[in-house]
Amino acid sequence: MNTNAYAMPKGDASKGELKTPSCRFCHGSNGIAPQPNYPNLAGQQQQYLYDAMLAYTNGMRIGPMATMMKGQLQNLNTQDLADIAAYYSAMK
Amino acid sequence: MNTNAYAMPKGDASKGELKTPSCRFCHGSNGIAPQPNYPNLAGQQQQYLYDAMLAYTNGMRIGPMATMMKGQLQNLNTQDLADIAAYYSAMK
Repeated sequence: MNTNAYAMPKGDASKGELKTPSCRFCHGSNGIAPQPNYPNLAGQQQQYLYDAMLAYTNGMRIGPMATMMKGQLQNLNTQDLADIAAYYSAMK
Repeated sequence: MNTNAYAMPKGDASKGELKTPSCRFCHGSNGIAPQPNYPNLAGQQQQYLYDAMLAYTNGMRIGPMATMMKGQLQNLNTQDLADIAAYYSAMK
């Protein structure tokens, strides 16, 4: 059942941390969202985080929040997304 | 920034538990996904879980996994979704 996962570059959590300033306002500096309509990211599955970010980037999630996320991610490449996914998945 | 959240019925976690047999295969009986391309649900924000399930139901998430999720949720009403969100958000 994981055949639909995107191929993901190897992520570097320490590099990912440097790429997350814009994530923190909504998802929390500790990966726990301060408002209940934003997801917690701390400890989330790495591949899922990567797939979800790509889905926003590729327009496969629709709506006001998805549009906002697409904008947030627009300057990040797939290596950046893998690094960010590694950072949050390793967070306790 | 939470103005886009859907209005959510009050969820009952104990009723939610009874509605999750089909969730568990992919998201784990403890809410921790056994495969990395499925999200963990344990402790996730209640409103986000509800919004995400509605997004699948409403076709606002697209792709093979989203199609699968839409099918999984097709017989659940908004009260069911709120109960399921309450169940997983309360899980440690």
